[in-house]
Amino acid sequence: MPHPGYTSGVIESPRLEASGETVAVCGQQEFVQRTQERNMKVGFVGLGIMGHPMALNLIKGGHQLFVYGKRRLPVDVREAGATVCDTVKAIAENSEIVILMVPDTPDVRSVLFDPGGVAEGLSSGKIVVDMSSISPIETKLFAAEINKKGCDYLDAPVSGGEVGAKAASLTIMVGGPEQAFAKVKPLFELMGKNITLVGGNGDGQTTKVANQIIVALTIEAVGEALLFASRAGADPAKVRQALMGGFASSRILELHGERMIKRNFDPGFRIELHQKDLNLALQGARSLSLSLPNTATTQELFNAAAALGGKGWDHSGLVRVLEHLARHEVAKG
Amino acid sequence: MPHPGYTSGVIESPRLEASGETVAVCGQQEFVQRTQERNMKVGFVGLGIMGHPMALNLIKGGHQLFVYGKRRLPVDVREAGATVCDTVKAIAENSEIVILMVPDTPDVRSVLFDPGGVAEGLSSGKIVVDMSSISPIETKLFAAEINKKGCDYLDAPVSGGEVGAKAASLTIMVGGPEQAFAKVKPLFELMGKNITLVGGNGDGQTTKVANQIIVALTIEAVGEALLFASRAGADPAKVRQALMGGFASSRILELHGERMIKRNFDPGFRIELHQKDLNLALQGARSLSLSLPNTATTQELFNAAAALGGKGWDHSGLVRVLEHLARHEVAKG
Amino acid sequence: MPHPGYTSGVIESPRLEASGETVAVCGQQEFVQRTQERNMKVGFVGLGIMGHPMALNLIKGGHQLFVYGKRRLPVDVREAGATVCDTVKAIAENSEIVILMVPDTPDVRSVLFDPGGVAEGLSSGKIVVDMSSISPIETKLFAAEINKKGCDYLDAPVSGGEVGAKAASLTIMVGGPEQAFAKVKPLFELMGKNITLVGGNGDGQTTKVANQIIVALTIEAVGEALLFASRAGADPAKVRQALMGGFASSRILELHGERMIKRNFDPGFRIELHQKDLNLALQGARSLSLSLPNTATTQELFNAAAALGGKGWDHSGLVRVLEHLARHEVAKG
Amino acid sequence: MPHPGYTSGVIESPRLEASGETVAVCGQQEFVQRTQERNMKVGFVGLGIMGHPMALNLIKGGHQLFVYGKRRLPVDVREAGATVCDTVKAIAENSEIVILMVPDTPDVRSVLFDPGGVAEGLSSGKIVVDMSSISPIETKLFAAEINKKGCDYLDAPVSGGEVGAKAASLTIMVGGPEQAFAKVKPLFELMGKNITLVGGNGDGQTTKVANQIIVALTIEAVGEALLFASRAGADPAKVRQALMGGFASSRILELHGERMIKRNFDPGFRIELHQKDLNLALQGARSLSLSLPNTATTQELFNAAAALGGKGWDHSGLVRVLEHLARHEVAKG
Repeated sequence: MPHPGYTSGVIESPRLEASGETVAVCGQQEFVQRTQERNMKVGFVGLGIMGHPMALNLIKGGHQLFVYGKRRLPVDVREAGATVCDTVKAIAENSEIVILMVPDTPDVRSVLFDPGGVAEGLSSGKIVVDMSSISPIETKLFAAEINKKGCDYLDAPVSGGEVGAKAASLTIMVGGPEQAFAKVKPLFELMGKNITLVGGNGDGQTTKVANQIIVALTIEAVGEALLFASRAGADPAKVRQALMGGFASSRILELHGERMIKRNFDPGFRIELHQKDLNLALQGARSLSLSLPNTATTQELFNAAAALGGKGWDHSGLVRVLEHLARHEVAKG
Repeated sequence: MPHPGYTSGVIESPRLEASGETVAVCGQQEFVQRTQERNMKVGFVGLGIMGHPMALNLIKGGHQLFVYGKRRLPVDVREAGATVCDTVKAIAENSEIVILMVPDTPDVRSVLFDPGGVAEGLSSGKIVVDMSSISPIETKLFAAEINKKGCDYLDAPVSGGEVGAKAASLTIMVGGPEQAFAKVKPLFELMGKNITLVGGNGDGQTTKVANQIIVALTIEAVGEALLFASRAGADPAKVRQALMGGFASSRILELHGERMIKRNFDPGFRIELHQKDLNLALQGARSLSLSLPNTATTQELFNAAAALGGKGWDHSGLVRVLEHLARHEVAKG
Repeated sequence: MPHPGYTSGVIESPRLEASGETVAVCGQQEFVQRTQERNMKVGFVGLGIMGHPMALNLIKGGHQLFVYGKRRLPVDVREAGATVCDTVKAIAENSEIVILMVPDTPDVRSVLFDPGGVAEGLSSGKIVVDMSSISPIETKLFAAEINKKGCDYLDAPVSGGEVGAKAASLTIMVGGPEQAFAKVKPLFELMGKNITLVGGNGDGQTTKVANQIIVALTIEAVGEALLFASRAGADPAKVRQALMGGFASSRILELHGERMIKRNFDPGFRIELHQKDLNLALQGARSLSLSLPNTATTQELFNAAAALGGKGWDHSGLVRVLEHLARHEVAKG
Repeated sequence: MPHPGYTSGVIESPRLEASGETVAVCGQQEFVQRTQERNMKVGFVGLGIMGHPMALNLIKGGHQLFVYGKRRLPVDVREAGATVCDTVKAIAENSEIVILMVPDTPDVRSVLFDPGGVAEGLSSGKIVVDMSSISPIETKLFAAEINKKGCDYLDAPVSGGEVGAKAASLTIMVGGPEQAFAKVKPLFELMGKNITLVGGNGDGQTTKVANQIIVALTIEAVGEALLFASRAGADPAKVRQALMGGFASSRILELHGERMIKRNFDPGFRIELHQKDLNLALQGARSLSLSLPNTATTQELFNAAAALGGKGWDHSGLVRVLEHLARHEVAKG
């Protein structure tokens, strides 16, 4: 392992999934297409907490899936009939549309461009769909590279978490060309509900980052406000209720405010994931020469949450850092 | 006036209003009470932008108003039949309920406790209602002082602005004893719609501060997010629309987000007033030994808005500071 | 006590000191002047932790002191021959130069302008010297008011703490007219060593605020750096030593950095006093429409220190807040 | 180039330097060693602004240098007798000590571990010395990898800039084993003056990060203080002078404070480099679960400086962001 902390060479990352005994060997199988026009050959790379139920939903929707087979492959994906390939390149060779759902920017880069990766298996007319949440700026570079192969690229990050992935109710924010969006839309509709084509490549990822900025900072705002109220002697539950009618009302005050009062910090959306997303925002801000002062400060508060043992808390647990600083809790729960 | 920057002595503050020629001299007039049970004798101190329409709504509701007459008194208040008194003390002597609507904590202190002030005119059983937005901590001290006179105290700050004051649609957040709240409620209902008794004295002001923290920080969050999106090349209007469905949705994203995109920074709620409110939050935080990091940073951004000429902008104009730092505007309007 | 939280009326504040049995009644005593040209009649209001040793140094220097006698007066000040007056006004009547050394802006305002205060006792040609640390902005207003009496005003805040006050080694930062500075300089030289006339009225206070901004923020910077180093596994003592040679070197790294490593948080300069000083900076920033982002954040960290029980810690104890957030201490001491 | 934004494969990065016509082909030349004990075979990778003069100083000191020859190689390095190699691997094969001086963490990783990189050319007993400023956390991983080859690793970042590199007066902060330090020390002494072995691997980089935190935050502090003073009407030059005697004194107040007053923002040390260093601090803070609130905010201010066109300004130009927010300059210069 010559590159500490970084994956390279032929794709064998433990973050990607594969089978032990391959059943259906890719490239050597014939599938009967049920619905001529809708049944598509879809590659899916990244069968983790999110990708696994998303892939199942695509199979249930009648599509033929090509997945990676060098490591653990969820049994139900194989049993549902996914074709297992030896390389990511082979997935791309066999699919019209290749979907990625991996942890971070370097993983997408690696899956796409490492030797044996997606790029090597593409041919003109195919579509790459990255549903991971990664850098909008690098997304544009990736898309340009893929375009050189004669292929379209869609960035299509999601929100809604594991619950939304299982329930096929994800919000999907898409960037890319309209005709590619139209072609992939039936697949999106098998995975999510609130599906928006925001603009060109990168705009999907940009929208996701904007979403994560607002969510984090609104949680922090609700935390400061409820802590102030509680420390000043007011009942935070009544304060929350009084505020829900006015300008301070938000989904965060409603849901995460209630979590802070009821002391329910089981995820939901984990703090360590929100740290990753704010890091995308802050790295983007540096690239774009933007000041995001409250995003920056909120990231530092998330770091403190991690120090308090909170990497796995729901992001509403950010309030615990403010409480820790004040030696006072919003509520006793 | 030997005390620069501070009001003391007999109440003659230019911030309070009074008449030129007094018509109805207080204490010497008989009013025919229209509705035996509801018609109350109400003192009203502070006929400014907010207090003026609020007082008119009380008169329209059939109540007898006692107002201050040493300086400018809005003509329509006098014509509507308000009784004009020479001192604030006289207002308190003639009223069952004394309402204050003045700019800041020192004004309330002065109106209540200076020589010739409200406290001197109170007698057991009367109620003082402070509808100004002031310090929750000092409010508790003021209430305790008033209670010594055998009188109840309600802190009842509002949100909704001049528009809400005129339309009698203010949100009113009340702290104080239930029986006093019950007695004053008919008056509140002539001025507002969303009326909540949050808890004991101070809790109304605390709720208002909590509201202003959330509103300011959510505006800032929406500003950072839309600026990021726009600077990264996305259409901020489409981003806002995509976000409205999910966890990032809020009244602020809806209304103030639209202002940022449409470039409408006419108030609304002025930045200099929000600076005053965040100052209450931050002074309170120091008293209570609380850290409010994003409130503190947002106050500094409001200061910068003021430097850019924005004291009179709607508070959504906070985004202009972020834009100024980035040399990039969210939208061209 | 009609004004909760605020002192008014004739000066009887417990913050000022006075005698039980007055020995020398002011206005009725003759003192033999030792040095014709240097021996001055000096009023001194505020014999607290700082003022007490400063006043003694003036008496030792051969000057005739007039002090306030309604409350506790340090025995040694009385025994040293200070003349005790019944009112602050009487102090001003009997002195050429009146020195103030009181806690905060409202105290200065009260001592100067309340009934029975300094202003009432002034006559043309006298000099008021405020050595308290207060608002530069209000200082200008105070000076203008005093000037109307035909008197000069010097703002002359100090740094160096109780140790410097006793050792007559205070740093004194002065604002005001040159001729007044020249006249008072012999007194300053009995109290301090590093004496600078920075500019006109307010500039002394402004310099003190600037000093306190830099000191607080440099402490915070050293805290972040040593905590980073320690948490990353380096020996903070060796890191501090390595840094002392380069651009990072400062008095704070030298002295307060050592305190952080040796775990010595006995004051020194107390956190609650630094909170007061940063509040002057931040209120000034609001008045002047300035953004002081790191001052604002550092104040919130001081608030957290107070919540951890640290109001009385030396200001280097600010590092404990960063440590508390990281669950890691710079050193074990 | 399949990996946008990332270097991999055989080392051909434009950030590294090489010759057009190779004169001395490495591995095929005999050098007469002047000083038997001191003359060492030294590989040097990274002949940029810093590395170029550092390498020349080593050659002047009598050492035999092996450098990379695929791209631009400074003429004077070749003329001074450096041996030019075709691969980085060959440099390592020919040298006892391999020095790296490249821009960032990924560059070090690439130079060390890519195919054809340093690691492939190492044999037991050699020493790798990384004088770049990179991540302390990844440094530990790199060192552990190199140790597996039977080689020691020193992290030895510098401060002092191009001026210090030319004058051989750099400050060098070293992490690694004592015996390796002792062996390399004669080389360090040809490049710098203030040379400290802080601790084990990573501690050199950690010290550098700590240094950059303090320097950035002290610049920011001095900026806030001088801006406050100037905006409040005081002469910033006199304020700076008054502060230099006390607790606020620092090298930064002395040198960068003067730059702010004299308006000299020519580098010195460029803002874009300080952005990179604070990014190391902030990425480290996330990894270590630390909150560095003022480092985070100061990074955002540097981002704003970049937006104002200041990537190439001296880092004291940070004050311009505060000035931009206040619409007021510290001085007219």
